[in-house]
Amino acid sequence: MPWIQRTVVLSPQPRGFQLVTREIVSALPEISELSVGLLHLFLQHTSAALTINENADPDVPLDLESSFSAIAPEDFPHRHTCEGPDDMPAHVKASLLGNSLSIPIHNGNLCLGTWQGIYLCEHRNQGGQRQIVATIQGE
Amino acid sequence: MPWIQRTVVLSPQPRGFQLVTREIVSALPEISELSVGLLHLFLQHTSAALTINENADPDVPLDLESSFSAIAPEDFPHRHTCEGPDDMPAHVKASLLGNSLSIPIHNGNLCLGTWQGIYLCEHRNQGGQRQIVATIQGE
Amino acid sequence: MPWIQRTVVLSPQPRGFQLVTREIVSALPEISELSVGLLHLFLQHTSAALTINENADPDVPLDLESSFSAIAPEDFPHRHTCEGPDDMPAHVKASLLGNSLSIPIHNGNLCLGTWQGIYLCEHRNQGGQRQIVATIQGE
Repeated sequence: MPWIQRTVVLSPQPRGFQLVTREIVSALPEISELSVGLLHLFLQHTSAALTINENADPDVPLDLESSFSAIAPEDFPHRHTCEGPDDMPAHVKASLLGNSLSIPIHNGNLCLGTWQGIYLCEHRNQGGQRQIVATIQGE
Repeated sequence: MPWIQRTVVLSPQPRGFQLVTREIVSALPEISELSVGLLHLFLQHTSAALTINENADPDVPLDLESSFSAIAPEDFPHRHTCEGPDDMPAHVKASLLGNSLSIPIHNGNLCLGTWQGIYLCEHRNQGGQRQIVATIQGE
Repeated sequence: MPWIQRTVVLSPQPRGFQLVTREIVSALPEISELSVGLLHLFLQHTSAALTINENADPDVPLDLESSFSAIAPEDFPHRHTCEGPDDMPAHVKASLLGNSLSIPIHNGNLCLGTWQGIYLCEHRNQGGQRQIVATIQGE
């Protein structure tokens, strides 16, 4: 099986932790053809992030947003403020959370646990489209 | 060399940062057969995490536990509190630390630095067993 | 195409977030020969880290340094203090940021976004050389 690599574009999302498992999987139908492998997702931005977290209770993404905004607060004495008060905290959160994920593939499905979902963490107030380079390898 | 993929079950651990390098390596004897490759570990949970840190001084995991519990404190005004005060902070720590690791393999061994060990970060007071999907590729 | 694996040694850096994209890429000329693949970088240390962040404004790495030093402060009541007040915060930051990166390769280049650069996060006041195991796979 050759390598598969494709850019997945996510539509603009409001600030916060947004579940995107379904969008990602539906953009990558080749996952279903692999018995074993790895999916690598690489977000090409520095003011948003990718993470895996609880996919069921809608309070969880709200608590993640308020928690990360407390850890990297807007009232911190930043130098890099030209793009607004949400910009430099977005860069801090991007490094706290990370911009890539690797997820195993087994029998045509992502090996996510029962309660695991893929989140786009949009840290800007007006984030725009977000590009992910998806790379799949397997057999 | 084909892909190797296997679930590794870690026995219940008390809350804190627990060194599991030996358990992981002994569950994956195929590492010793590879001259070059990558081991991917994917924890299928959202209230625990995997990280690499200092493997020698037993004070380090205690300081990691107290530091991460200060960064994501239990007295934060969370909405998602139905599973107890340790639950939502556990989700925050899971995203701060991440649920997966990729470690290079060289000449039959993991390429860990002298002071590096693999930690299971158990963030729940009563965590139970934890499942890791291990995926190995190499030659 | 066989696997490529090599140790890249970074010269000692002052404490802070240091852009090393150029050093990494120039040490790995094989990237230019691949049409598709993945580069994995694994830092073999527990008091430094690797991250991807904004590569343009020199204020950003200064703000990242001050932000992470506020999140993992030196005046925290740590037990592991024998190597100085910067040591245990360095371990906390190492786990917050992570010690490895996976970056997709496309048409002979790393698929970094326009504003993305690779940072070595040196958390020690006197860090010394830092070793990275680079593993490349592709075709």
